[in-house]
Amino acid sequence: MIAFRTPVEGVLVAPVVRPGVAENAGLSYAPALSFPRHATAQQVIDTLRQMRPDADSASYLFVTGEAGRLLGTLSLHQLVVAAPETRVEQLMNPNIVALPEDLSTEEQARMLSDSGFSALPVVDAAGRLVGALDAGDLLDAVEEEATEDMYLLAGVDKDEEVSRPIQRAARDRVFWLTINLATAFLAASVVSGFQDVIAHAAVLAAFMPIVAGQGGNAGTQTLTFIVRSLALGEVRMANAGKILLRELTIGICNGVCIGLLVGVLGWLWKGIPALGIVVGVAMLGNLILASLAGVLVPLTLKVLRIDPALASSIFVTTVTDVCGFFIFLSLGMLALQMGYL
Amino acid sequence: MIAFRTPVEGVLVAPVVRPGVAENAGLSYAPALSFPRHATAQQVIDTLRQMRPDADSASYLFVTGEAGRLLGTLSLHQLVVAAPETRVEQLMNPNIVALPEDLSTEEQARMLSDSGFSALPVVDAAGRLVGALDAGDLLDAVEEEATEDMYLLAGVDKDEEVSRPIQRAARDRVFWLTINLATAFLAASVVSGFQDVIAHAAVLAAFMPIVAGQGGNAGTQTLTFIVRSLALGEVRMANAGKILLRELTIGICNGVCIGLLVGVLGWLWKGIPALGIVVGVAMLGNLILASLAGVLVPLTLKVLRIDPALASSIFVTTVTDVCGFFIFLSLGMLALQMGYL
Repeated sequence: MIAFRTPVEGVLVAPVVRPGVAENAGLSYAPALSFPRHATAQQVIDTLRQMRPDADSASYLFVTGEAGRLLGTLSLHQLVVAAPETRVEQLMNPNIVALPEDLSTEEQARMLSDSGFSALPVVDAAGRLVGALDAGDLLDAVEEEATEDMYLLAGVDKDEEVSRPIQRAARDRVFWLTINLATAFLAASVVSGFQDVIAHAAVLAAFMPIVAGQGGNAGTQTLTFIVRSLALGEVRMANAGKILLRELTIGICNGVCIGLLVGVLGWLWKGIPALGIVVGVAMLGNLILASLAGVLVPLTLKVLRIDPALASSIFVTTVTDVCGFFIFLSLGMLALQMGYL
Repeated sequence: MIAFRTPVEGVLVAPVVRPGVAENAGLSYAPALSFPRHATAQQVIDTLRQMRPDADSASYLFVTGEAGRLLGTLSLHQLVVAAPETRVEQLMNPNIVALPEDLSTEEQARMLSDSGFSALPVVDAAGRLVGALDAGDLLDAVEEEATEDMYLLAGVDKDEEVSRPIQRAARDRVFWLTINLATAFLAASVVSGFQDVIAHAAVLAAFMPIVAGQGGNAGTQTLTFIVRSLALGEVRMANAGKILLRELTIGICNGVCIGLLVGVLGWLWKGIPALGIVVGVAMLGNLILASLAGVLVPLTLKVLRIDPALASSIFVTTVTDVCGFFIFLSLGMLALQMGYL
């Protein structure tokens, strides 16, 4: 939050501290000490003496140009051994690896880890220095974000931990279960609409959990993959179409395989060929829908600037439950009316 | 894998490189250059000159005692400014923060991040130096392990990524769906056993997905929390009993809340008081079972030295599906026999 610039003996010092803007992060950057390109080695040393920065922030010294644009990095060693009047722009290392501040924490972590450095400067869209990030800080952030995504996908509060009071943990989980309950009643109302069909062909009831369950599982597979890949920066709006096609293809393959398997098993188990066809076709349809929902739900949340992990599994399983039951029971009704069940 | 000891002018050099043993890690430690306590500054410098280690491994210099036990750390700076005959044990910094090699990657990350250093030595159970870990390496490892756990919980292959061939992705997902299918047929066979009950009271079918779905959700909440807390080192065998009690309490609270809610809603929706009682009691029972399964399944896998994330959601949802249907339909049968449905 601090962002001051103090002119000391002609040297502009900017320990810029800004909270991270990376999605969900709340990640604070380390202060970065920067000096204008025309400052001399002696001026910088004098300023450091006067500021007495802690060792942590003094380990990152940067050189900036017009409007705070990052030009290079400076080592204490170079400062000390240089002639006092040398300008820092002549001493600096101009080969900078800088982290864009709008990258996700996971993407920043990957860049830092690939760079081989233990800390890197962070710049905004205009190339202005906004702080520094070190691997230690990112380690905590990366762990926390992963925990958060995992918990959100499962409907657990992101701050849940072993030491959390039971009342709060119970209250937060009941909250998610209640939201889930609303969608469960939606699915139940679909089933309720087919009550007469079920009364006449109760054998259908046994296959309901199979159709909905497999749809939910397949949807969760796709969803989890998409949510994590969005966080890691591997799925972006630019390749969203390709990813949708990829997951749709997987959904069709899975649908054919599992549909055939369930159809044959259902037929053999109950000895009713029509039942096998009804279950198999419903399974194919539901797995295709599952793959579409697994991609489109998190992408839509992302476009709406909502965390893609948040509540997305509820939406996906609602689609697979409601549609799964509807397709299966509609086909069952058709088979019953045609006298095959 | 390399683990040689070359005597150079009376100086034992041990660039010990060992792959990480941390759970699932495959994390390689950086080589750590170590010197015996009685070596002199000059001997160490001579050895370094002769070995020409890359800058990466030379940044960690360690002093070891009997049997390779880690005694302290050494800086290049201290070596250069010291009198040539000074023994390294006099130059070293004896205040070591070392990472035990049997900690999980996440626990090592937390220790490193708390230490404020960018790299730390790794020691085995006997205090012997086995390598060094830097924050950059850990960043990758922590991200990978989190991705792996997330994917395993959802039945996605741990190596899944955007660029993975569709055939392999589809094959791996079908594998998990097929295993899930086996357990889904188990649940279906329970329902099938109550076919007559459902034929006489088809209204029960509408509530089946609610009882099973809520149980599965509550089980997944507990399971995800336990799997992540095991990885972070917050749940251990030592506090397992306390955690089980905590989750059981949450399960009972949730069961009472959601059971009451579902019971009242079910009664109002269908206008059958007995149906409300049947659904409510079944919900309570299933949410209690869900919390027990959510704790006991991952802990059992951990005791069996299997990754707690692996296949645990299948076991948990099998428990909540099979038991949920059984409790609900048994109670439904009772209510039917007593003439309340």
